[in-house]
Amino acid sequence: MKTHLIFIFLSLFAFGFSQSSNNTIEVKLDSKYLNETREIFVQLPKNYHNNQEASSDHYPVVYLLDYQNNFEYYTAMVNFMSKQPYAGIPEMIIVSIKNTERTRDFTPSKSSVNHPFEKGKQLFTDSGGGENFLSFIQYELKPYINKHYRTMPYELFVGHSFGGLAVVNAFLKHPNYFNAYIAHDPSLWWDNNLMVKTLEQTSINSKPFNHKVLYLSQANNSEENKNWNQDGIDAIQDFDQVLGQKNSSNTIIYEYKFYHNEHHGSLPLPANYNALKFIFQGFETDMRNSIKNPKSYILEPYENLSNRLGVKFYPTNTYLNQLIEFAKKLKQPKAAQEFEAMKH
Amino acid sequence: MKTHLIFIFLSLFAFGFSQSSNNTIEVKLDSKYLNETREIFVQLPKNYHNNQEASSDHYPVVYLLDYQNNFEYYTAMVNFMSKQPYAGIPEMIIVSIKNTERTRDFTPSKSSVNHPFEKGKQLFTDSGGGENFLSFIQYELKPYINKHYRTMPYELFVGHSFGGLAVVNAFLKHPNYFNAYIAHDPSLWWDNNLMVKTLEQTSINSKPFNHKVLYLSQANNSEENKNWNQDGIDAIQDFDQVLGQKNSSNTIIYEYKFYHNEHHGSLPLPANYNALKFIFQGFETDMRNSIKNPKSYILEPYENLSNRLGVKFYPTNTYLNQLIEFAKKLKQPKAAQEFEAMKH
Repeated sequence: MKTHLIFIFLSLFAFGFSQSSNNTIEVKLDSKYLNETREIFVQLPKNYHNNQEASSDHYPVVYLLDYQNNFEYYTAMVNFMSKQPYAGIPEMIIVSIKNTERTRDFTPSKSSVNHPFEKGKQLFTDSGGGENFLSFIQYELKPYINKHYRTMPYELFVGHSFGGLAVVNAFLKHPNYFNAYIAHDPSLWWDNNLMVKTLEQTSINSKPFNHKVLYLSQANNSEENKNWNQDGIDAIQDFDQVLGQKNSSNTIIYEYKFYHNEHHGSLPLPANYNALKFIFQGFETDMRNSIKNPKSYILEPYENLSNRLGVKFYPTNTYLNQLIEFAKKLKQPKAAQEFEAMKH
Repeated sequence: MKTHLIFIFLSLFAFGFSQSSNNTIEVKLDSKYLNETREIFVQLPKNYHNNQEASSDHYPVVYLLDYQNNFEYYTAMVNFMSKQPYAGIPEMIIVSIKNTERTRDFTPSKSSVNHPFEKGKQLFTDSGGGENFLSFIQYELKPYINKHYRTMPYELFVGHSFGGLAVVNAFLKHPNYFNAYIAHDPSLWWDNNLMVKTLEQTSINSKPFNHKVLYLSQANNSEENKNWNQDGIDAIQDFDQVLGQKNSSNTIIYEYKFYHNEHHGSLPLPANYNALKFIFQGFETDMRNSIKNPKSYILEPYENLSNRLGVKFYPTNTYLNQLIEFAKKLKQPKAAQEFEAMKH
């Protein structure tokens, strides 16, 4: 019987941690690259303003495309997944960009097609602004975010559909821009499989690709819809196949996952959940056992994660304070001292 | 090439649907059963106030326990999953109850145990208030919600851990209270497996159980933690085994799922996602094909779902208006008329 009591205790404790309310900030940013003002939404971690010592905590940053579709569930999901003592991922700053001309910004080349219903009309005539948009993020948005918020140098880039195309293009052309690239059902059919061709000409066994993560998800668009989008399905599978061959020495941390029970529209939520778990696997620490051996249960997991991702991760002071509080409740002053010494 | 253009068109269209912002309402309710004032948070569907015709749309209601832990991601998830044209579940009203005395409210019997760390102290001395809490929901909270909001008679009850225990208890003792019972890693070890014993004495092949859904999830608490909570693990597996035998004629719609990559704390988000998909499987309609045959692509799926769940579901006027708008764009006046005729 005694075995499960610690479990109960931890559960009760978990429900007690206080967290402040939502921290979403709207920013308007003038862009020279895009020649327009862009609306940006920033969500800070719940603990960002928590106490004096949190003021030296720094956080990874997610750059999330298609604000309107993704911001609400993505921020809520990150809040849930990063909540101690059960956190599977770090608390993060989420930066999401509201669309103006989505096709222009997310497509890497100029390419148009006939409109399927309206004769004489062309679709995607404004395409090909992808490079400008990436420059906006890299040289205008990121400096703004890094100046105003406590960021750490781990950056994720997340997109779906055309947004996924933008992410794959950034991965191939600018592997130094981000640390993790997450593309859900990307429109790799774009411009006669341009991304597959670009990949074929790219050496991914060089330095900028080292430690970089690529998470590629694909929805089941064929089952109910009888292959009505076979070009799009094939392009993603071709890309995966070529990448698998090129990455035989595991230079990049790569995952491809096919979602049998999801279609194009439903994919982003479960695939973003799994992508975050994949990227940060090993982040989770065992709070209960950490009291017995703070070094091996707290510092070692952070070291392993840092080695895997190529960027140094530290436990936040906010988390260390929770551990100290826990150690004191259990009357373990030595563990509390060790946690105190881990602060930065 | 032409095959994927409709797909593109639908994607573009999807990003265009306007939705109003968050609709969360805080309510304070005096309870005679609990002899206290309770804080309730209600989230209305994004389309609840959308237009004149939405005013005759009615929605299922989710009663969600542990407000503090679940409300944020759960409401965001339901908003995402219920967004047309890709909706896999209906839009719903989410009603969540903030805790006061969690152990008292969620436990079906009085049962205490020795505190694991503090000698002479007992845990759970305030347990056993479960029946009062269920009466509060059934006879005070529900009448309030049904009076003030446009509800339809399909109600879900969702809980995790002790909250899952409350859900399983409600399922066994009051199968007429809700339509779908969702219990995540429920504390079925409670009071020497009281729920397993109660199940053994319950006939689930009678009318109140007909069409009712029970979704039971279990986290992988043993792998990393070396069976430190074996009682809790066994109790859920015993419950599943007994239920499987009792439900051999499929009176209830039952799913048990073991989550290999989740532990007790991380389970609720992915398990709630899967529970909603399980309950409403078949809800999804094919907007694109519906233009060709409105009856078989819209009405039939709703009829199948209604038959499965034992409650009549209708397409909302809001969705029908989206279909009408889509049909008009594609110059299909006959389809538009048929959608118009489906309004109520």
